[in-house]
Amino acid sequence: MKEKLTIIKIGGMIIDHPQRLHQLLDQLAALAGKKVLIHGGGKLATELAEQMGVEQKMVDGRRITDTATLKIVTMVYAGFINKNLVASLNARGCAAVGVSGVDGKLIQAHIRKHSTIDFGWVGDIDTVNIDLVTSLLTGQYLPVIAPITSDTSGQLLNTNADTIAAAIAVAMSRLFEVELVYAFEHSGVLRHLQDPDSVIPQINSSLYQQLLEEQVITGGMMPKLQNAFNTLSQGVEKVIIGDAVQLTDLLSGKVGTTIIHE
Amino acid sequence: MKEKLTIIKIGGMIIDHPQRLHQLLDQLAALAGKKVLIHGGGKLATELAEQMGVEQKMVDGRRITDTATLKIVTMVYAGFINKNLVASLNARGCAAVGVSGVDGKLIQAHIRKHSTIDFGWVGDIDTVNIDLVTSLLTGQYLPVIAPITSDTSGQLLNTNADTIAAAIAVAMSRLFEVELVYAFEHSGVLRHLQDPDSVIPQINSSLYQQLLEEQVITGGMMPKLQNAFNTLSQGVEKVIIGDAVQLTDLLSGKVGTTIIHE
Repeated sequence: MKEKLTIIKIGGMIIDHPQRLHQLLDQLAALAGKKVLIHGGGKLATELAEQMGVEQKMVDGRRITDTATLKIVTMVYAGFINKNLVASLNARGCAAVGVSGVDGKLIQAHIRKHSTIDFGWVGDIDTVNIDLVTSLLTGQYLPVIAPITSDTSGQLLNTNADTIAAAIAVAMSRLFEVELVYAFEHSGVLRHLQDPDSVIPQINSSLYQQLLEEQVITGGMMPKLQNAFNTLSQGVEKVIIGDAVQLTDLLSGKVGTTIIHE
Repeated sequence: MKEKLTIIKIGGMIIDHPQRLHQLLDQLAALAGKKVLIHGGGKLATELAEQMGVEQKMVDGRRITDTATLKIVTMVYAGFINKNLVASLNARGCAAVGVSGVDGKLIQAHIRKHSTIDFGWVGDIDTVNIDLVTSLLTGQYLPVIAPITSDTSGQLLNTNADTIAAAIAVAMSRLFEVELVYAFEHSGVLRHLQDPDSVIPQINSSLYQQLLEEQVITGGMMPKLQNAFNTLSQGVEKVIIGDAVQLTDLLSGKVGTTIIHE
C-alpha cells in the first residue's frame, strides 16, 4: 500500500490575514505524515506594484504579466511569502524547505499562447519532475512551493498556483496515496452562495453533473471542481475544498466538501 | 579520502553585469564534481528601495536593515536573484535548487547586538545545519543559497553572504574536502592596488603576517583574508580569491590568489 501524502494549496486571502495564517500553520505543523504546501500570492504583489508605480493590466479579469510584474511576483511569491512561511513552520518545529517550480526542474512550462490575448510571462505546464519533492519528503522536510516556473531557456514564468497544485498532486500519486486540499476563505462548495451553512459535504461524479445542471455550481467554483475531477481521474485519491483555518477538521471530513471520483 | 566540494561565493558586482554573470554560469555549469553557489545582492536591492521610496540608512558604511529593507532584501535575494540564477543554471543542464539560510534550518541566527549601533534586522550566525545541503548534493543538485537567515522564533534576518559562505564551508569540511572561492570583480589580492597585474598568487600564514606589516593588505581585503584564514584553521582545505569570470582558471590555480593554512 502506498504511503499517504497530503498536499495543501492555500490561497491569497489566507496569506493576507496573519491571524488566520498562523491558525493554519499551527494545524499544518501538527499534522502527522508527509505533506506539501503550495501557496499563491495575495494582495502583496498588487500592493508592491502600486508602491513601485507599476500599472497592473487586467484582461477578462486576469492579470497580464509584463516584465515588471514578473519581477514583482517572483520577488513576492518566491521571496517574501515563501521564506516567511518556511521560517514560521521551522519555528513550529516543522522543518520546511521553500522552493518554486523552477528549482530542481520541478515544473517545466512554456509561455501561454492565445489567439487574441497576450498574457505576457504566464506559463502553462509541460512536465512535472517530482524527484526534488520526493527527496525532500524522504529527508522529512515539508516542501513549500511558490508558483513561479521557467521554460527550458531559463525564462521565469508566472503560473497559476491551483494548476501547479493539481499537476504536482497527479504526479505524486504515482508514489503516494494523495489527498489534495484547496484551503481558501469559504467553508466549502455551497448549495446556496449566500448561506455559509449550505456546504455540500461530498460530491461524486453523478452529483457533480446534477449540480451543474441545476446551476448550483457557477463562477470561480466551476474551474476548481473541473480541476478536482481531472486530478481524481489521474490517480489522486481525494480532493477537499474548505476553510483554511479548519485544516484538521477538513482532513477528518468533519467540515468542507470532499470530492471523490467514484 | 573525502570527496571534493567547491563552494563559490559571488558578489553583487557580478550579479549586476549580465554578460559577466553568464560567463561565470557557463563555467560553473561545466565544472565537474559537487558544488555549492552562494550569492549576495548587488545594486538591485538599492534600486528597488529607491523605486519604493524606502530610504536606505547607512552607519559606518553599513546598511541598516529596517523592516522595509528586510522585506526588500528578502524579495530581491531569495526571490528574484535566486530564482533567476537557478533557472539559468537549469537551462545550462545543471540541475540547481535555490534555497536560503532559512530553508531546512540551514542557518540559525540571532539579531545583532551592538553597544552603540542598532543594525536592525541583521543576523549573526549561531549554528549551521548541513543536512539539507548534503542531501541536495547527494541528489546531484547544485544548491544556490541566498543570504537570508532566521532566528528560532521565525523572524527573518539579513546576513552577510561572505560570512555565510565561510560558515557553510567550515561545516561542510567535516564531510568534504572543501575549496572555498570568493569570486568578485578583482583579479585577486593585489600587491599594488592600482596595478591589476600585481596579483599575489599564493598567501600562507607567514606571508599574510608580512603583508599586514608592510600594509599591503588594507581596507575591505583585511576582513576577507582574516575570514579566509579562520576557515582554513577550521578544516577548509583552500580559499581562492579572484575574478568571477575566470572561475575555471581560478580553480586550476592559473590566476587569482590561493590562500593556504600551512
